[in-house]
Amino acid sequence: MSAALDNETGIDLSQYTADLGRAARAAAAELAHAQPQAKNRALLEIAAVLDQQRATILQENKKDLAAAGDNEVSAAMLERLELNPARIDAMIEGLQQVAGLPDPVGEISELRYRPSGIQVGKMRVPLGVIGIIYESRPNVTVDAAALCLKSGNASILRGGKEALYSNQAIYLSIQQGLQQAGLNEAAVQVVNTSDRAAVGHLLRMRDCIDVIIPRGGKSLIERIASESVIPVIKHLDGVCHVYIDDHADLHKAVAIAVNAKTRRYGVCNAMETLLVASAIAPRVMPEIIASMSAKGVELRGCERSREFDAERISTASEDDWYTEYLAPVLSIRIVDDLNQAIEHINNYGSQHTDAIVSENYSHTREFLRRVDSSSVMVNASTGFADGFEYGLGAEIGISTDKLHARGPVGLEGLTSQKYVVFGEGSIRA
Amino acid sequence: MSAALDNETGIDLSQYTADLGRAARAAAAELAHAQPQAKNRALLEIAAVLDQQRATILQENKKDLAAAGDNEVSAAMLERLELNPARIDAMIEGLQQVAGLPDPVGEISELRYRPSGIQVGKMRVPLGVIGIIYESRPNVTVDAAALCLKSGNASILRGGKEALYSNQAIYLSIQQGLQQAGLNEAAVQVVNTSDRAAVGHLLRMRDCIDVIIPRGGKSLIERIASESVIPVIKHLDGVCHVYIDDHADLHKAVAIAVNAKTRRYGVCNAMETLLVASAIAPRVMPEIIASMSAKGVELRGCERSREFDAERISTASEDDWYTEYLAPVLSIRIVDDLNQAIEHINNYGSQHTDAIVSENYSHTREFLRRVDSSSVMVNASTGFADGFEYGLGAEIGISTDKLHARGPVGLEGLTSQKYVVFGEGSIRA
Repeated sequence: MSAALDNETGIDLSQYTADLGRAARAAAAELAHAQPQAKNRALLEIAAVLDQQRATILQENKKDLAAAGDNEVSAAMLERLELNPARIDAMIEGLQQVAGLPDPVGEISELRYRPSGIQVGKMRVPLGVIGIIYESRPNVTVDAAALCLKSGNASILRGGKEALYSNQAIYLSIQQGLQQAGLNEAAVQVVNTSDRAAVGHLLRMRDCIDVIIPRGGKSLIERIASESVIPVIKHLDGVCHVYIDDHADLHKAVAIAVNAKTRRYGVCNAMETLLVASAIAPRVMPEIIASMSAKGVELRGCERSREFDAERISTASEDDWYTEYLAPVLSIRIVDDLNQAIEHINNYGSQHTDAIVSENYSHTREFLRRVDSSSVMVNASTGFADGFEYGLGAEIGISTDKLHARGPVGLEGLTSQKYVVFGEGSIRA
Repeated sequence: MSAALDNETGIDLSQYTADLGRAARAAAAELAHAQPQAKNRALLEIAAVLDQQRATILQENKKDLAAAGDNEVSAAMLERLELNPARIDAMIEGLQQVAGLPDPVGEISELRYRPSGIQVGKMRVPLGVIGIIYESRPNVTVDAAALCLKSGNASILRGGKEALYSNQAIYLSIQQGLQQAGLNEAAVQVVNTSDRAAVGHLLRMRDCIDVIIPRGGKSLIERIASESVIPVIKHLDGVCHVYIDDHADLHKAVAIAVNAKTRRYGVCNAMETLLVASAIAPRVMPEIIASMSAKGVELRGCERSREFDAERISTASEDDWYTEYLAPVLSIRIVDDLNQAIEHINNYGSQHTDAIVSENYSHTREFLRRVDSSSVMVNASTGFADGFEYGLGAEIGISTDKLHARGPVGLEGLTSQKYVVFGEGSIRA
């Protein structure tokens, strides 16, 4: 068998990743029944070491930034790659917050007696080993490590190659924190090679990794989902809609549409398409057009929407309805009724987050039932689709899958439930 | 593009399966928000039609049995293939029971106010389209159709080719029942070709099928899991253990061990390996050996176990510890302590169902925490691992996966949860 070799460092990647997997599997078996206080102590120790190591981490980050500058990466990537004192503060706060969350492991629910006399319930347990593949944002290293650790899972973290120095510096702090708390250091491992082939190896390690979570752009996630033989929790695009129903309250409609679009443009829960019931359009469109234009939002619409302002609304193409702009651009479509709105969302949307603005009882119920998205909202901005806003405490991503976890994924999404049965010497007839 | 062709019927399989998928997707969109009473009426109508069509179904089943006889299939397969009045009664009762279960769809749980003023909860929703691949047991056609229908999912059912006539006869009854209840007939579709290549097509239809559930032997399930590009809920083998702890009550220990092994031999929740703490072995082994031998159970053990009766206990090989006998054979190992028992189970077991017999508080807690199986029991027979015994009402299989559903899978395992958010014109700061 020919071993893959890392072009840059000369290490045997196949052997290297197999070693990571074996160590992670062993650490996971211990971590699964670690005491909550041991895990929390590790989180706080890591926070303390990060605080002590600020200078070193910023210095290593400078190396990454310099290399990235030489390679002429985009300004957006540089922005994500850069660490500064405030970002290190945020990492430390994140660790402290996760330490303060309730421990999900071991929770037993629905424990009920059955006619046979046994008592059956479900116990929350870690998934095992989680592989996280992400882009060049060093803060993800800390966030992901913290959530996996708290949920009792060992993790193998593989960040973008542009952040290699930063991630290794952060990794040293994590290891030191784990050590100080007396936990297995392989509970968190950060892949120490910039060779992309390492990812290929990880995605085939079915025996050692239980689930893969990619974090980043759609192309990264699609590539990983198609290549992985391990189950993937994926977060594809967020083509989110707000539908202003013919029974909408005008004030709520405008406030929600403007908030959903303009609160932040580059986030997955931002509205990309506004649907307006034709009966209410004459009353709501002028204000929508004025508010969006005032914020500098480019408008692209169907022909009926252009009747309200052909100058400010250009003609939307079929592609526009499928597009996640992540920018100050909004597509607008006038629909006949609720039914057409729901069909548009289920056809063009990405099953992420969609909202209706309406005071009509039956319309809101039908929208909730029929819109097949991970978050469905009534009279609220799509901007609320977020683990913190939902009370999950933290979030590792938003799942657009249907199996296992759907919507914002917090500690619970990193666990599973096994059945527990308590008997009194019970035998089955 | 070359189209696959069915050798026997000459139909274009690629086109045929794509048509099934498209029809299922459309039916799923309707079925997801069908009224509970419409689904229940369909289940009862199907039961009534099956009752009327008994003669035809038994006649078609005779054709399958005759062909199977010509092909010299095993007696076990013939037994599973055969329908008789009692089995048709059981199908009808199954449909009536499923109709009587609470409808899982639309249930909203954990609806709570958040500091921002929004109210966030989870709504249970169908998965969409479920593909079920099974062997030559015609009753599975009815069971699977009923559970998918009740949970609001469209289904594509593909039974073993030996049962083709029986399944098509049953399918006609299902279609008639759906029609009489006013539901889309494509809500349940049974693949009408014996060509195995049809399965290959189904397993690649990522756009039209949301989850694949194979039911049958381990080799079928492994083949499907490795070939499918669609997520699979799989039930591999059941290498179940009972561990008799040094603090076990002797009477409970013997009763549970005998029940777990001898209640039924061919079921996945039967005990295959008995672990006995060395300190209690002298008191419990004689009775275990006598009871098992009286029932005709062959014993294979470690050297320490053979010290109790080298005549009745042959030497177990390393392979025995991994084996699901599904037969009156039991492997026995004497272990030093709880820790060695847990390590044995996590190493050789199949993460299905494992039980401890003990009166020791700390030992039972440690066993529950550390044994990584879909069902973990204290002082109860592994024979209880079953959807009906757990109160799920019905079961489509037992999942040995960790993601999504673990253990017996009932209606809930065929659904997912989406977030619902209720606001009052709420916008995010």
